[in-house]
Amino acid sequence: MQQRSIETRNTILAAALTCFSRSGYDAASVAEICAEAGVSKGAFYHHFATKHAVFMAILEEWLTRLDSQVTTYVESATDVSQALVSMAGMMGGIFSEAGGRLNMFLEFWAHSSRDPQVWQTVIAPYHHFEELFAGIIQRGVAEGTLQTDDPEATASAVLALGIGILLQGLLDPKSTAWDKVAVESMQTLVKGLSSTVSHNK
Amino acid sequence: MQQRSIETRNTILAAALTCFSRSGYDAASVAEICAEAGVSKGAFYHHFATKHAVFMAILEEWLTRLDSQVTTYVESATDVSQALVSMAGMMGGIFSEAGGRLNMFLEFWAHSSRDPQVWQTVIAPYHHFEELFAGIIQRGVAEGTLQTDDPEATASAVLALGIGILLQGLLDPKSTAWDKVAVESMQTLVKGLSSTVSHNK
Repeated sequence: MQQRSIETRNTILAAALTCFSRSGYDAASVAEICAEAGVSKGAFYHHFATKHAVFMAILEEWLTRLDSQVTTYVESATDVSQALVSMAGMMGGIFSEAGGRLNMFLEFWAHSSRDPQVWQTVIAPYHHFEELFAGIIQRGVAEGTLQTDDPEATASAVLALGIGILLQGLLDPKSTAWDKVAVESMQTLVKGLSSTVSHNK
Repeated sequence: MQQRSIETRNTILAAALTCFSRSGYDAASVAEICAEAGVSKGAFYHHFATKHAVFMAILEEWLTRLDSQVTTYVESATDVSQALVSMAGMMGGIFSEAGGRLNMFLEFWAHSSRDPQVWQTVIAPYHHFEELFAGIIQRGVAEGTLQTDDPEATASAVLALGIGILLQGLLDPKSTAWDKVAVESMQTLVKGLSSTVSHNK
């Protein structure tokens, strides 16, 4: 893509995020996004086929950033156990990014869940994170800090903890210090997965 | 309430659940619910002030049932650790009840998140479960099977694991055996909370 085209695409993405956050996914129209971005409908449709497509692009950019953060944590930590706990510590940043957008996400998911084909594209990033975390768990097993017979199931548990805390934090931001809960929960889970504790069946 | 009045209320609740599941929360109208239930609008409004109220009643009945199941698990288990793992095993039943209703819940939450006052009534049951689980964790500490400085935070972690697995299971029911993941995750978390393992800070 040429520089100017990339800039237009980014302008549309930023405007769409503003409109979705302000009006909600259902109420925000392509016309509103174009007005906010200061571009023509022609320019919009040159970059995105539908309102759904622009939302997916926003979601993907957010997840790509999350993905590179996760990889950085794993690369810079001394072991996987420590990386998982450090990652839990980044929940605060996720909250501040996701906060206020709960309504937008809920509407988008509700909208997408009506169409099985669309739904597959919506959950694709989730599968990606499942694989990413299964790889991280396998690395922990290989280095000898984690113990599990089923790295995929363990990855799902780690993700469940993250998703569950994120959702509780979005539902009710002020009830507790969610980033502290995230770190302590991950410490507990990692302790349960640790290969150095005694085994009581 | 008189017997006939209770029956009418239950008929409306069952009809509303059918309509919400079929059409979604936004699209289902009070007229559609009345037609499905075979009652007049007068009868509907005698029992429920709004469509929102009938949804809240459905949610509350579901949560009351869940609450009594949780209490039964705690009462019948030998200790809290075992009760938590047994509870995770009941996730299968939650999936079959919640499955297919994801769209309805998402729409309802999206709808409710626009109004802070309504939102408080929607998250009230969640606070109830938080307290219920904080009490269960305290019981585990008192009996000597669990170790935590912060029972509320630990309760949030247990709930996060449940909510995260429930959400993943609803998003993508067929990708794995979610009830198995639930039991294994809870075993790991409980192991991390166990007072008998060695402490590595």
